[in-house]
Amino acid sequence: MANLLTTLPDATQGEIFEEILARPGARIERIVSHGQSTPIDAPYCQDHDEWVLLLAGGAGLSIEGEEEITLKPGDHMLIPAGKRHRVTWTTADEPTVWLAVHFGKGG
Amino acid sequence: MANLLTTLPDATQGEIFEEILARPGARIERIVSHGQSTPIDAPYCQDHDEWVLLLAGGAGLSIEGEEEITLKPGDHMLIPAGKRHRVTWTTADEPTVWLAVHFGKGG
Repeated sequence: MANLLTTLPDATQGEIFEEILARPGARIERIVSHGQSTPIDAPYCQDHDEWVLLLAGGAGLSIEGEEEITLKPGDHMLIPAGKRHRVTWTTADEPTVWLAVHFGKGG
Repeated sequence: MANLLTTLPDATQGEIFEEILARPGARIERIVSHGQSTPIDAPYCQDHDEWVLLLAGGAGLSIEGEEEITLKPGDHMLIPAGKRHRVTWTTADEPTVWLAVHFGKGG
């Protein structure tokens, strides 16, 4: 049985992105962070909607034109296509685990 | 900030299905169970692939042609299109929270 929360990879040297499943229409990804943040001069910006759910740890997320928010386990939100966004912090003392669903992408 | 694990609806009288987000290509749903199971003579069977992730609680899942499995938080699996499947049990002493991604469906 595959589990998203056990046997986590060591992400202390860099965030780890893993594809869980891809189908026409959407792609599911797990991201493990460990203290990283997105450089202020290199925000993410995608051409598709992305839904994120925080599974473990904690993080800050800043989306263009909105107030910075804090994510705890269970928190989720849509990052609309074309919106610049940055992870402002992730917990340094434990892994942060994200689930991301990328719409309009897939296998 | 929306959260999938806090302020859970009372599912003791029946499972509660809530759409979280729908986009062309996929639909994301939260299911809260509280002791329910799928009747043995009325298994689920969908015409699309469904990916499930257990977020809280515990459950048994039986998929046609496979051994019954036990799901704990973080466990996830694909239920292929056309495969009959049943939830054989969910925890009676606490809510069980599922995340389901239905591929090939959406808004």
